[in-house]
Amino acid sequence: MRDAYHEELDSIGDVLVDMAGLVGSAMARATSAVLEADLSLAESVIAADDAVDALQREVDRRATDLLVRQQPVAGDLRMIVSSLRMTADLERMGDLARHVAKVARRRYPDSAIPPELHSTIAKMGQIAELLVDRVRAILIDRDARAAAALESEDDAMDRLHRGLFTALLDESWKHGVETAVDVTLCGRYYERFADHAVSVAKRMVFQVTGVRDAVPEDFD
Amino acid sequence: MRDAYHEELDSIGDVLVDMAGLVGSAMARATSAVLEADLSLAESVIAADDAVDALQREVDRRATDLLVRQQPVAGDLRMIVSSLRMTADLERMGDLARHVAKVARRRYPDSAIPPELHSTIAKMGQIAELLVDRVRAILIDRDARAAAALESEDDAMDRLHRGLFTALLDESWKHGVETAVDVTLCGRYYERFADHAVSVAKRMVFQVTGVRDAVPEDFD
Repeated sequence: MRDAYHEELDSIGDVLVDMAGLVGSAMARATSAVLEADLSLAESVIAADDAVDALQREVDRRATDLLVRQQPVAGDLRMIVSSLRMTADLERMGDLARHVAKVARRRYPDSAIPPELHSTIAKMGQIAELLVDRVRAILIDRDARAAAALESEDDAMDRLHRGLFTALLDESWKHGVETAVDVTLCGRYYERFADHAVSVAKRMVFQVTGVRDAVPEDFD
Repeated sequence: MRDAYHEELDSIGDVLVDMAGLVGSAMARATSAVLEADLSLAESVIAADDAVDALQREVDRRATDLLVRQQPVAGDLRMIVSSLRMTADLERMGDLARHVAKVARRRYPDSAIPPELHSTIAKMGQIAELLVDRVRAILIDRDARAAAALESEDDAMDRLHRGLFTALLDESWKHGVETAVDVTLCGRYYERFADHAVSVAKRMVFQVTGVRDAVPEDFD
């Protein structure tokens, strides 16, 4: 049987999984909102971010309490400290989903994304979802090897991000400056979302193995 | 006399002050590089960011060691945990200065900033420097009241950021899409730099007072 202390540790891990689920859903819905100019979907993403922030505060409070009351050592200590950092990454991923939704809202009833870039943004949304699915699995299984696989998804996100810039800077661009600004910002939001997902995975590797890999660069 | 443990705590605080100094200097030089299309200055900012990253790793290693070896409680524990978060903010501020420098490098020998926006970006650079100066003073003096003053600087940054968008979206914009993209990105980098500076100050308030203020939203 687990004692109350280890139950609390497990429970903090469960909240991280919940946070990952919420930010993955938020980014999926934000992608639909920005591609389909869906105002009510955008509003729901913007409103839902408060729940992510509340979970972050909850984990931070409980993790700090554990540090103070239980004086954990070694592996447990590492877990609690890295949880505090993972909540910061996950909270930021929620912000980035909200930012995409705000672009959709600002441009409604127009779409912020021109037709020829729909498939690029749709793919960036799919990779964002895939990354979050993998992060959730890593948080649940504590499988350090699975974290390595995220790098290739992140590379794919990076290629799509560069593709957006190629389209923006092509002489044939005909969608004006406002759309260029929105595409620039959305591209950055997806790319940063992926960076934070990789960061969560790397922190989990550190938690499990004690080997600190460098936290990822962002690549622009 | 201070014992070795408290000397180590103080010394971690000193490294945070050093990090703030480095990222402030980096953003000041990045601003000159992007305004004056100064390639060698841009290169020096890009190269110097490694030193900030190294200091972050040093603080993180030493803070984690202290947690493991000394089992600190209450105020000391709070200080160590918030140090771990402040290094993350400061490291990110270094990244953002590097991003501005990379924009300067990418557009060399042209300037990424059109003449009529020079004064706006120059002011954003000045506010970034002012914020870092205040953050350094707060880290040195541990003066929680001084942190409140940062909000007004951050509001000023926000107004300048909105001013950039107004210029970008004005029908009279004549600098094309590439410059619009660069101005959009630079605006975001300065605004995020300011957010992280406010975040460091708020963490210091929490460290000193134990009262957790919400970590700042970013305002776009």
